[in-house]
Amino acid sequence: MHLEPRGTDVSNTFWRTSLSSVEENKILIRGYRVQDLMENCSFGDVVYLTFKGELPKGQEGKILEMIFVSSTDHSVLAPSIDAARFVASAGTPLQAAVAAGVIGLGEHHGGAIEQCAKLLQECVTGGRGAGEIVRSYKERKQRIPGMGHPIHTHDPRSLKLMAKAREWKLAGPHLDLGEAIAAELKLPLNVDGAIAGITSDMGIPWHYGKAFFIIPRVVGLAAHAVEEITRERPFRALPMNDVTYDGPPERDVPKGNQR
Amino acid sequence: MHLEPRGTDVSNTFWRTSLSSVEENKILIRGYRVQDLMENCSFGDVVYLTFKGELPKGQEGKILEMIFVSSTDHSVLAPSIDAARFVASAGTPLQAAVAAGVIGLGEHHGGAIEQCAKLLQECVTGGRGAGEIVRSYKERKQRIPGMGHPIHTHDPRSLKLMAKAREWKLAGPHLDLGEAIAAELKLPLNVDGAIAGITSDMGIPWHYGKAFFIIPRVVGLAAHAVEEITRERPFRALPMNDVTYDGPPERDVPKGNQR
Amino acid sequence: MHLEPRGTDVSNTFWRTSLSSVEENKILIRGYRVQDLMENCSFGDVVYLTFKGELPKGQEGKILEMIFVSSTDHSVLAPSIDAARFVASAGTPLQAAVAAGVIGLGEHHGGAIEQCAKLLQECVTGGRGAGEIVRSYKERKQRIPGMGHPIHTHDPRSLKLMAKAREWKLAGPHLDLGEAIAAELKLPLNVDGAIAGITSDMGIPWHYGKAFFIIPRVVGLAAHAVEEITRERPFRALPMNDVTYDGPPERDVPKGNQR
Amino acid sequence: MHLEPRGTDVSNTFWRTSLSSVEENKILIRGYRVQDLMENCSFGDVVYLTFKGELPKGQEGKILEMIFVSSTDHSVLAPSIDAARFVASAGTPLQAAVAAGVIGLGEHHGGAIEQCAKLLQECVTGGRGAGEIVRSYKERKQRIPGMGHPIHTHDPRSLKLMAKAREWKLAGPHLDLGEAIAAELKLPLNVDGAIAGITSDMGIPWHYGKAFFIIPRVVGLAAHAVEEITRERPFRALPMNDVTYDGPPERDVPKGNQR
Repeated sequence: MHLEPRGTDVSNTFWRTSLSSVEENKILIRGYRVQDLMENCSFGDVVYLTFKGELPKGQEGKILEMIFVSSTDHSVLAPSIDAARFVASAGTPLQAAVAAGVIGLGEHHGGAIEQCAKLLQECVTGGRGAGEIVRSYKERKQRIPGMGHPIHTHDPRSLKLMAKAREWKLAGPHLDLGEAIAAELKLPLNVDGAIAGITSDMGIPWHYGKAFFIIPRVVGLAAHAVEEITRERPFRALPMNDVTYDGPPERDVPKGNQR
Repeated sequence: MHLEPRGTDVSNTFWRTSLSSVEENKILIRGYRVQDLMENCSFGDVVYLTFKGELPKGQEGKILEMIFVSSTDHSVLAPSIDAARFVASAGTPLQAAVAAGVIGLGEHHGGAIEQCAKLLQECVTGGRGAGEIVRSYKERKQRIPGMGHPIHTHDPRSLKLMAKAREWKLAGPHLDLGEAIAAELKLPLNVDGAIAGITSDMGIPWHYGKAFFIIPRVVGLAAHAVEEITRERPFRALPMNDVTYDGPPERDVPKGNQR
Repeated sequence: MHLEPRGTDVSNTFWRTSLSSVEENKILIRGYRVQDLMENCSFGDVVYLTFKGELPKGQEGKILEMIFVSSTDHSVLAPSIDAARFVASAGTPLQAAVAAGVIGLGEHHGGAIEQCAKLLQECVTGGRGAGEIVRSYKERKQRIPGMGHPIHTHDPRSLKLMAKAREWKLAGPHLDLGEAIAAELKLPLNVDGAIAGITSDMGIPWHYGKAFFIIPRVVGLAAHAVEEITRERPFRALPMNDVTYDGPPERDVPKGNQR
Repeated sequence: MHLEPRGTDVSNTFWRTSLSSVEENKILIRGYRVQDLMENCSFGDVVYLTFKGELPKGQEGKILEMIFVSSTDHSVLAPSIDAARFVASAGTPLQAAVAAGVIGLGEHHGGAIEQCAKLLQECVTGGRGAGEIVRSYKERKQRIPGMGHPIHTHDPRSLKLMAKAREWKLAGPHLDLGEAIAAELKLPLNVDGAIAGITSDMGIPWHYGKAFFIIPRVVGLAAHAVEEITRERPFRALPMNDVTYDGPPERDVPKGNQR
């Protein structure tokens, strides 16, 4: 993958990418030499660079680090963690158990970042306000993503993220809109909603939304998988009294189906 | 998981299922003893039993076997097979490579079975005909799932499936509607569409749609993963001339970002 | 992917496979047209063909069907099923939930088929007997794969498989050796061990071992995922009283780590 | 999951963990309130805390950040990236495509971190030196993990990591042993070997080894998946002339197998 100027005719290669380039002893991330990034940048800076194409000019890398610190683990209350532990107990390499958990970061579990970012980006662009949005969701009897939490009424994660985004002048119309929607609903903006607002104000497309949750949560997934493997017996087996079978009772194969 | 009659209060167990039950030396699938099923039923019969709750009364198990035979492999032209081979080459257990491929059986790759079955089931229930359906998709500029194929103009799989479904009296209003839509579009009903029509006529809910593709395709995924592991060198590496980098050229970290 | 004779120089293509071939309106599996296989073969026959390269000459396809019927589901007592249900509850497409379960078919959960088949194939080739094998595992304090079961002392699945393999003249030195090892240990040959013995006697390399479990178990994984999605609330959340936290109590960040 | 002192009888709960605890409006990571960690710690600090149980006393968090910056992407030359792109092109949610790539971080692709860390930790504990290790691997004709690279003779990532580990007084007997082995082999210590040495000198068990690669690489996997989805057409299909079929030529089903 030789370094080539933009505009090269790519019609004859099966793969093309603008993200990174590799030659002997040279790795470029968005054009920057990896050793220069290692010397000068935080992990948060490099995530920003990867998704946006340019290095941050302000505290963007710092708030990404804070987002990542907020979301490494939510213990076994997160279905993805349980999935990773069951899989780890069955005897798999670490990355395979982590992957099983990552699959579970779906629409109901971190997926609200993408959904909320999409909503905020479309409505800020389209000039739609909180009142109008809330009415339209109510009419369709749909829940607005990023609002409310089943356990946390004052989620310490979203409160801290919103405070710092304002302190560091990173808040803009997307976070404002998220907070306005939440106020309209009399619900708190949850941690997914706060991350959606902040990353949207950084100009990061909503398509990356789930990544802000996947990246930190792999830390917790890996730690739980290792804890399962090193502290528990293999093959995590449910106690039978935690299961109810409510299908048909024992029966014979009908005559017509017998060979 | 003791066998309990329907209607048991399940409020105190975390898990409940109507699919199967396990006790010492007794495994029941939808109430039938597994050894009786082994003695009397084909694999296709048992898939039907699992998804529908009852054993087939006609040739349903036989056409499911035929569906499975139709879809074990489409060689490396299927993105899922390529994914499984790349993952296998990186040094993973067989089931992990297969799983990577299974993830790839998404909306554009077998996913049309679910989409088409949903469409057919909703339209047969709602009494909507082919003409109306085609008009409404055209207005929204959407493609109707299950129609046409990029390579196969006369797909031997769908032709055989439709012929046998009619011969075995398994075709009904769903397959009819699928064929009517295809005729309206002047496209062939593809293999996804044929499977959608036939399984819908069996009364299997669309939610199971993708399963009819996942089940057979794991055969091909496993075979390709074993072939990769046993015939190829580890770490399948692209030739560099098959890649174009079209991102920014090599550059220095800006002063403002230097530590 | 044009059909080419064996021995073609493949040095200039990135992919090669001996499994299947696809051209316009023609799909070949190990050389056979897919529509001919659909017309003449069971699913078990085609799995045999895929893994061995040739169609069965006896009841091999039939016993593979029986193996598949034996292993579609073991309810939520299987960690893989729990993983798939947690992931499904988080809001993912069906194939992604199934894949999370497939990852969990690891060394302690179906993995014994591969391990036991490898052992049997190496020992039959090397002429090592049951007594010698048992002694060498005991010396290394290792468990022999495929022997004994935590719940089933008389597993109806392995008993039926072994009986049919003998009835259909498919049993040979590998199954004999498996049974001899089990007798030496005074343990039953379990379902993994029976499958290992039978498929080894068919001449199928141990590398495919896990596939005989993956293929049927995706049926159960898909059915449990659909049941979770259609019968349960999203985001399966543990009751808090089923969790113990035994890490450090709440504490302040030390002075030295404060910013 | 109420906060309980160590030593609590956990025999009646199905889950236990020492990693984190969740109550209404309170999330503790290894005992620390998440908002305090957000205020005071980098992402690297929190990974260290999660895996070790205590916050770093020196520059450990900083070198973890540097490790993460070193390993976010190696472009499509990494099989895991190709797998994720194929899966993304098939129409899956972002986290599912990322997970397919994560599965591929196997024994030949980042797996050397775990293998090398295990070797270094066992040999430092057991007092075995570089010469003895090299001899024993040569006798068994095995490759020592963490040594040499197919593309990079002077890998900028490992050189920078080793320099900083020494500058920050984080290097110790494990990194020394890794470098001594490399010198004995006249090969460079590669990036996996450098990460193995440094994290081992921090006292992190080898079981976490692969996590140091998974965590950063999910950044690249997510970015490539988004690039695939937003810049390329769905269903990435190989050009047929990049595939060779070398199986049996087209043939008829034998008489004996016809129904």
